[in-house]
Amino acid sequence: MSNQPTPLVPVLAVVGVGLIGGSFAAALKAAGAAGRILGVGRDTSTLERARSLGLIDEAATLDAALEQADLVMLAAPVGTIASLLDTIAPRLRANTVVTDAGSTKSDIVHAARQSLGSKLGQFVPGHPIAGAEQTGPKAARPDLYMNRNVVLTPLAETGRPALSLVTRAWQVCGARVLTMDPDTHDTVLASVSHVPHFLSSVFMWQVAMAQDSDLRLSLAGSGFRDFTRIAAGSSEVWRDIFMTNRKAVLTELADVRRALEHAEQALRDGDAQALEDFLERAALARRLWASRSRLT
Amino acid sequence: MSNQPTPLVPVLAVVGVGLIGGSFAAALKAAGAAGRILGVGRDTSTLERARSLGLIDEAATLDAALEQADLVMLAAPVGTIASLLDTIAPRLRANTVVTDAGSTKSDIVHAARQSLGSKLGQFVPGHPIAGAEQTGPKAARPDLYMNRNVVLTPLAETGRPALSLVTRAWQVCGARVLTMDPDTHDTVLASVSHVPHFLSSVFMWQVAMAQDSDLRLSLAGSGFRDFTRIAAGSSEVWRDIFMTNRKAVLTELADVRRALEHAEQALRDGDAQALEDFLERAALARRLWASRSRLT
Repeated sequence: MSNQPTPLVPVLAVVGVGLIGGSFAAALKAAGAAGRILGVGRDTSTLERARSLGLIDEAATLDAALEQADLVMLAAPVGTIASLLDTIAPRLRANTVVTDAGSTKSDIVHAARQSLGSKLGQFVPGHPIAGAEQTGPKAARPDLYMNRNVVLTPLAETGRPALSLVTRAWQVCGARVLTMDPDTHDTVLASVSHVPHFLSSVFMWQVAMAQDSDLRLSLAGSGFRDFTRIAAGSSEVWRDIFMTNRKAVLTELADVRRALEHAEQALRDGDAQALEDFLERAALARRLWASRSRLT
Repeated sequence: MSNQPTPLVPVLAVVGVGLIGGSFAAALKAAGAAGRILGVGRDTSTLERARSLGLIDEAATLDAALEQADLVMLAAPVGTIASLLDTIAPRLRANTVVTDAGSTKSDIVHAARQSLGSKLGQFVPGHPIAGAEQTGPKAARPDLYMNRNVVLTPLAETGRPALSLVTRAWQVCGARVLTMDPDTHDTVLASVSHVPHFLSSVFMWQVAMAQDSDLRLSLAGSGFRDFTRIAAGSSEVWRDIFMTNRKAVLTELADVRRALEHAEQALRDGDAQALEDFLERAALARRLWASRSRLT
């Protein structure tokens, strides 16, 4: 008989074993906090890669995973989480906790209310604020969430044990766990994540469509590189994020557009002082953020 | 008597010994291509720091530097280069070559025509496309220009020996030297350098001005970090860049705004396919650029 203590999550099921789900699995495994890890996904070659990389112990069907798992992590693109919740609802056992890693939360909470019925208390909506341009299991790493923020948006119905399990699991990954309501999450993320992605993609698109785009791109430097890095992200993932957070993104974009008009007017007027003031405020704010952030 | 060959630049004078000028000096010195290096600047403590870091051999007045230098590099903010050209014009000796590192070129070429008169052929306008958020002599390093592009915008009047000297000096720094006309340079740089800086600063300003900016900034992740990195740059330097390249920047901004309206309309319409198409084109263009660029 083994003397080892029971791990935090005896059986973990990860639906979607890419960067986000694979890193969650790898972090829990590295910490000894997951007993057995089952991987679920559409693409068998991705599952096989995740297994050979040691992210999961075995591939499983969704049904088999739901029969065994203590914790189910839904790490699929936001647009497919609603239908996943619908699929798992009738098969969800009473002691299984479900969480997700979707980048928008109001839509998912709405879908959960529609699908889960009396099992709603077993679901803990979540969003790890971490990522990279790379995707897929090969990009997964156990330290992806170290010192990163994870936002949980529990409902009034969410059970305390469920919330506690998911909180502890993320803490084991090295993350800082915050809770807030889904609308606040979506408004804030529209501002600091979705709008930058939108602007970066619009700009990259505009440069690429220019008649002299080859010349332009040949003279692009490190500022261009940093500013456009996020535009390389998965169009499928980001389409879903924009579509599920449309209202908040459009509201923020309208506000950014007003700020842009203001700054453009200063430039049009040749008002060097107004221009410098605005640039200086932006520079000071960015430097202050960098000095406080663990990211730079 | 020494057997050492004469260096490419027996006496180099650098006006402005910050990141750009200091790195030029350091690269030429590291390659043995500069004999003696004189530093010129407004701030004696900056000059002293540059000397103690070994970027320059000694501090000098502009007059003393002009008497001795074979090559004068003007590495001051764009807005002060015109007045520097005006100051040096009457004291410029016949065999001295002058170049600059200003980020915009049409304005500087115009100023050179006004100031230099019969000495116009000694001036080689230039722009090294390299930089960093850091400024000052401490940030200078001999490899800053390694594999980077340097654009020269020679005039019809520019002397061949002057153009050849400046070209060789940059090549010694490890840079790839391109030549083009000043208007093309300014149009292209408006697109891939000035507009990203403008958008990044506007966005950073808008987030910082929001009532809940603390909450927003606490949830900002690595995408935000990359997208706003350039906004931390010197407001003085960038004010000058925008002011001296107003027309091209405003033209590009208008085009970006049209692209933004197009993408926003797709989102407003809930047109997931149009949204994904635009995101996918941007992502493919960015990935193609990264695969070709030496910067990523």
